Amino acid sequence: MHTPFRTQGPDHSENPWQTLRTETVYENPWIEVTHREVINPSGGPGIYGMVRFKNLAIGIVPLDAEGYTWLVGQYRYPLQRYSWEIPEGGSPIGQSALDSARRELEEETGLQARIWTPILEMHLSNSVTDEFAAAFVAQDLTQGPSRPEPTERLQLRRVRLEEAVEMVMRCEITDSISVAALLKTSELIRRGELVL
Amino acid sequence: MHTPFRTQGPDHSENPWQTLRTETVYENPWIEVTHREVINPSGGPGIYGMVRFKNLAIGIVPLDAEGYTWLVGQYRYPLQRYSWEIPEGGSPIGQSALDSARRELEEETGLQARIWTPILEMHLSNSVTDEFAAAFVAQDLTQGPSRPEPTERLQLRRVRLEEAVEMVMRCEITDSISVAALLKTSELIRRGELVL
Repeated sequence: MHTPFRTQGPDHSENPWQTLRTETVYENPWIEVTHREVINPSGGPGIYGMVRFKNLAIGIVPLDAEGYTWLVGQYRYPLQRYSWEIPEGGSPIGQSALDSARRELEEETGLQARIWTPILEMHLSNSVTDEFAAAFVAQDLTQGPSRPEPTERLQLRRVRLEEAVEMVMRCEITDSISVAALLKTSELIRRGELVL
Repeated sequence: MHTPFRTQGPDHSENPWQTLRTETVYENPWIEVTHREVINPSGGPGIYGMVRFKNLAIGIVPLDAEGYTWLVGQYRYPLQRYSWEIPEGGSPIGQSALDSARRELEEETGLQARIWTPILEMHLSNSVTDEFAAAFVAQDLTQGPSRPEPTERLQLRRVRLEEAVEMVMRCEITDSISVAALLKTSELIRRGELVL
């Protein structure tokens, strides 16, 4: 699964923007921020500050035969809020997203899954960033010990998928990957395209 | 509607991160990028590059009595891709999100709506940014002329809501606000919580 996603990377549409100059203004192991001088689609001069992500965002909806899923709680520093989410992580661009998903699921929940179904390709914040997310449903689960990264302080809850979807409907889950992946999982089950 | 969103801004959870130093490394009218020296939740030293957004992201699902919605097509510069999305725009933090939604809908589609229902509060990219999005369903519509901003080059399509949801299910719509808002609108109609 080197480049499994149709919607990652540029397409062949005509680009109505021209880039005159690009300057890297910040870089760390996760992002690169560039300032650009551009000609916008109407032909006028403009600027664009753009954030390039060095990792693919990965989300996993683990789903057991009884209809339960797992949510991870953590404090999200940029929001200054606590957030309940599906298990998530980053995958270096070019590496296998599925391998990263397996690793993240096991680290955060201790679960190993035998059936993996890709369900989602999404651009998280396309006015400023190129951040791309992929989500999977993980089934046929075996429980082992979790091994969260030492910089993380996580809580774990096993809840019915329906309850997780209710948390989305009540805006108690607000993380975009979790919102989209849980609603889509629910719709795929309703259609019979995912079977517990 | 000054601060209508429960999930915008910090909550009162204990913050396991300490911030030792903050430096602004880039700023433009839309974002501010800061580099931070931190103590992470495990007590070790670390860095954090964070992107603060100066606008709330707004999405609108217009919905007429025949079950049609409107999609906007545009080239997204950060992705280098063409993207079909629900009507979207930005609302300066602290201004009325609903007023901004009315303005964006009319600019991009020419539609005015008498019934507005907030359906979504979402954090788009919470590992790096504080970007917050709110989405509305707009009903009881009147069609006038559209007036897109001169920097935009937009296409407009009127499609059945079901067809827009199919585009989400097939990963042809990949913008996170559009994915979440269309799936949620569909679920609210199924539950009878939204009526055409």
